[in-house]
This record gives sequence, C-alpha cells and structure tokens, in this order.
Amino acid sequence: MQAPVTIRDVARLAEVHPGTVSRALNPQTRNLVNAATAERVLAAADQLGYRPNSMARGLKTNRSLTIGVLIPDLTNPLFPPIVRGIDDRLTIDGYTPLLVNTGSDPERERSSIEAMLARQVDGFIAATAQLDVEPLAVATARGLPVVLVNRTFEDGSMSACTVDDRRGSELAVEHMVGLGHERIGYVAGPQNVSTGHRRYLGFTQAMAAAGLEIPAGRVSYADAFTEEAGARACAEVLGADPEVTAIITANDRLAIGCYDTLLELDRSCPDDVSIVGFNDMMFIDRLRPPLSSVRVPQRELGFAAADLLLEQLTGGSMPAREVMLEPALIVRGSTAPPRA
Amino acid sequence: MQAPVTIRDVARLAEVHPGTVSRALNPQTRNLVNAATAERVLAAADQLGYRPNSMARGLKTNRSLTIGVLIPDLTNPLFPPIVRGIDDRLTIDGYTPLLVNTGSDPERERSSIEAMLARQVDGFIAATAQLDVEPLAVATARGLPVVLVNRTFEDGSMSACTVDDRRGSELAVEHMVGLGHERIGYVAGPQNVSTGHRRYLGFTQAMAAAGLEIPAGRVSYADAFTEEAGARACAEVLGADPEVTAIITANDRLAIGCYDTLLELDRSCPDDVSIVGFNDMMFIDRLRPPLSSVRVPQRELGFAAADLLLEQLTGGSMPAREVMLEPALIVRGSTAPPRA
Repeated sequence: MQAPVTIRDVARLAEVHPGTVSRALNPQTRNLVNAATAERVLAAADQLGYRPNSMARGLKTNRSLTIGVLIPDLTNPLFPPIVRGIDDRLTIDGYTPLLVNTGSDPERERSSIEAMLARQVDGFIAATAQLDVEPLAVATARGLPVVLVNRTFEDGSMSACTVDDRRGSELAVEHMVGLGHERIGYVAGPQNVSTGHRRYLGFTQAMAAAGLEIPAGRVSYADAFTEEAGARACAEVLGADPEVTAIITANDRLAIGCYDTLLELDRSCPDDVSIVGFNDMMFIDRLRPPLSSVRVPQRELGFAAADLLLEQLTGGSMPAREVMLEPALIVRGSTAPPRA
Repeated sequence: MQAPVTIRDVARLAEVHPGTVSRALNPQTRNLVNAATAERVLAAADQLGYRPNSMARGLKTNRSLTIGVLIPDLTNPLFPPIVRGIDDRLTIDGYTPLLVNTGSDPERERSSIEAMLARQVDGFIAATAQLDVEPLAVATARGLPVVLVNRTFEDGSMSACTVDDRRGSELAVEHMVGLGHERIGYVAGPQNVSTGHRRYLGFTQAMAAAGLEIPAGRVSYADAFTEEAGARACAEVLGADPEVTAIITANDRLAIGCYDTLLELDRSCPDDVSIVGFNDMMFIDRLRPPLSSVRVPQRELGFAAADLLLEQLTGGSMPAREVMLEPALIVRGSTAPPRA
C-alpha cells in the first residue's frame, strides 16, 4: 500500500509553503490565501489524491461532513462522470458525498431529501430532472446550501453549475454551416428542462445569425432524451423535408435514434445526412460512424458544482449564482459536406 | 400527478387479500405468509411502484431506514443497473439507499464506511473491488448486516449475490465449440477479484469438458478490466499463435480492446477471429460488429442483493450465504464459424 499523501507533498507540487496548503485546504481559512494560489493548491491536492483527516475536522467544526447528492438516473451515462467530479472535489475538503438515485421520481426525490436531512447532511448537490423547486426548497428553508448541477431553474432562485448550452448548439450550427449545409433540421429535447430549452434557443439564434431560415417542420421535439424519441423526431424532420442534409440534436441518445431512422430509410450518415450529438457520451466514438458531438466537460461540471457548494458552506448566506462552463465541439465521422 | 399506488392495487394485481399484502410487505411479518405468495406480492409491488409510508414505519421500528451502498466506480457501465435494482427493492420496504462511489480507493472506502456508520445506516451492500474483508468487517463487528453484490470473498465469510461466472464462461466456450472453433484463446481478467478468477476457471473447465487443449500462450491475463489491457492481452494471444480463430474474454471492455487490436492487425471480426464478451453492457449491441456477450442480469443482481440484506435485517443473525443467478449468452455479429 502507498504511503498517504501529506500536506508537504501538496506544497511541493504547488510550489508553496506547507502552511499555505493548510490554509488553502481549510474552507474556514481559504480566504486568507490569494485566489490563484488557492486554485493551484486545490489542483495539486486533486492530482495527488490528498485527503485530510476528516474525523478530526468533523469533531472540530460540529459538521457531519456529508453532502447529499441527488441524481435522477445513474444509468444515463451523462451522470457518472459528474458524480466523479463531485467526489473528487468534496474528498479534498474531507467531505463524504452520499448519493441517491431518484429515478426521476418526484416522490422518491422528496423522501430521499427527507431521509438525508434526518441524517444531517451539510448541504445538497442536485442534478434534478424536474423543474420543480419545491422539494429542494425544504432544504434551503432550513438554511442548508443547495447547488444544482447540469440543470438550473430559469428563475435563478438557486445556485447552479451548468454548461453554456446555447453556445454548444451554436458550435454545432457553425460546424454544419462551415461544411456547406443550408437545409439543417433540429431534433429538440423536452422543453421543460433547462438543457432542452437552452439548446433549442441556441440553435434558433445561431441559424438566424447565419442568415438561414427555419421553415415549418424543420424542428421536431422529442418527448424524452431517449433513442426511441430521437428516432421518431428524426423521421418527422425527414418526412417534412426529405432534402434536409444535416440534423443537429439536443443529446447523443437522440442522435443515436437518428442513426436508427437513417438505417431504416436506407440513407447513409454522413453521405446523405450529417448528424451531430450533444454531451459526448462514453462509447459514442465507437459507433459507426463515430458521432460528432458537443462535449460537456462532465467531470469538471461536478467538480465546479462541489466547489460552489463548499464556498456557500463556508461563506454563509450568499446570493444564488450560476457558474457556466464552456462546451467544445468534437468532430468525428458523422458530419461531412453535403453531396454536391 | 398520478394517484399513489395503494395496498389495494397491489392486492388486486397479486390476486391476494389486502391483509396478505400488508403482512408480505412488512419485513417483520413476512414469515407469516407463504414464500411463493410473498414473492408474488413483492413482484406486484415492484411492477406498480408501490411504496409504504416510510416515515411512520421508521418511528415505529427505531431504524434509520437507510442502507449504505458502496460502488467502486459508477463510470463503469456495469454498476448503474445494479444500483437501480438495489433501489427498486429497497424502496418497496421503505428504505433509502445512500450510495458512495469509492473510486476503488481502499482509503475512501474506509472513510465512507465510517461516515455512513456515523449517520446510522442499518446495513451495507457493497460491490467492493478489493478482496479485502477488513473495512467491511468493522460494520459486521457492530452487528450490521453486509451483503456483497457481483463480487464475493472466496472464504465465504460474507453473504453475497453473484452471477454464476463459471457457467457464463462455459456458455461462451460451448458456443464457440458449436460453431466449429478449436483454437480458442482466452483474455483473462485480474485474478485477484472473484469475477476474474471464476470466469477463468469456467473457461479451463469447459475446454477440458470439450476435450480441447490449452497450449502455453493461449491465455493472457489483463491487469485491469479496461480496453487498453484487453488490447495488449489480445495481441499476446495472437502473437503466441496467429492461427487462433476465436477469443473468449472475461469482460466486454476487454473484448472492445480485442476489436482495437484486430483493427490494428488488419484482421476482421468475425471472419478471421470471433470474439465474445462478458456482462452485456449498454451500447455493445451498437458496436461494429455488435458484440456477442454473456449477459449478467444486472438489475436482478441488485434486486436480489437488496432482498438478501432485508432478509438479514429482519431475520437477525444468520449464517452467510451466497445467492447465485444464472447468466445467459446473447449471440450477435461478433461470432461466426471459422473460415473453412
């Protein structure tokens, strides 16, 4: 077994004094350290896998040092890397994240929050599927900090860490336009979740910016982020205009559904229709063709959400704010210029 | 919102009296009901999504009604469906599972167990990666029931719910032999985890039963269940004998690594080499070629592990026992008869 990583090891990597590491890693004294230095210390602690003696610290601060994490569906490949980022960040400060898989069931979400409140968690991070503030409001009413991850409430009532979804759709449109596509369809996600709504808005804005029309029938709305819903929506777009040469989707599973529809219609990707996904899920680089997709920095999203929660845990009551990370387009074999 | 499912609804579906449902769903009175009837009631409750009023029951029994669930790596697609099965079963009895993603880190596993003991969980379900009894023994020493899922300690010291791994490898060998293969290689997983070890044993037993030799170099051991380790091991097997026409692997990620090696060697699957995986992970049906694989009933595994835990929670101290589920071979495009 390896020797445990010490404050001295972190200090060496971050090129600071061990005392600075102690201050930077203790949420109560972090503000005594220059912000850029604190960032460097955190990155070094993360890289080395440093963890403090949490039992001792718990006794001192009278906190449970546990954080409730609510995930709607762990079988959705989007969430496990987010959980990993949350874990990695909380562990540095000696917190244990306790996860609940709510199954997108509001009743289970509610009872999980109650169970975790009874177990005295210090705060919550929630990737809630529902745009329903109420269950989480029980926690905020008790003065516990809550941070949303990947999703947000549009009224800005809660802190959130999200990806710039509008910008992601823009990147996809710019890529298709750059390849020479003009008849571009869109398979939208459910509009009652922020990711679905914002990605759709980004599409319409980017099309307008490129001077391209969106005729009736060019957009179809999937009722869920599933392959089946994507397949249906893709068939609708191509039914309304068989000359569409490119389809942008709100999520990789919808894009996989588009592959299924193209196969059924005996049309090839990317020769007949280019497809781009969103999320850059595990294994989509192994599809035929490998799927071009807007990458969401999933682990970083979880890491930043945990960071925001820890800031609120130590800084006392603060106004809600949203931290937005930049997406990136990963180009693979599913996008190509339209047939001449 | 839907009306909540009642005991009456469960009774109707299970075709029993509502009083029987109450007794079958209450762990304290379940033994008053015929076992087959109790099974039918549980299945009906699961199908309908029935959940009891857990707050009231918690007050009565003086339990926390939370169960600690330790998962080594949620980004491994094997685990989320197991978690879902655990959730589905525990929810029926009004328990909330609190998950910890240990990152296969023994230190994090230890501190998570401590944190959950401090939060007074009633028991543990662990898909621990380490074959190290010690951290979990802290829980059993305090009289808390512990059930392992997917993995087990070979000394039989803890209850476990596993899949019959030996039988899974047998199914793969029988399939290859049935197709006419004789030069069959094996990419083994790490031998210090029960799945890796048992799957390898199943391979050697089935080869002996089929009267086939396993010459030196025909088996290569991957040092981790990863694509990279699988690619290296596959190259070793084909390096030792380029005439090998079929490779059986201990896990789908190892099989995906074999695909990479075949591509690099410009050999086609299944025409030159048939490949079979193990676990039947999400999305492997979308690889080219779609991967034949031994299916592990993942959700059922989690469901049965939770069932075993609840039995121990209510039955008091019982000898450790192992529940073993049957695997099944799913044949897809990656296996075919050898070239004539």
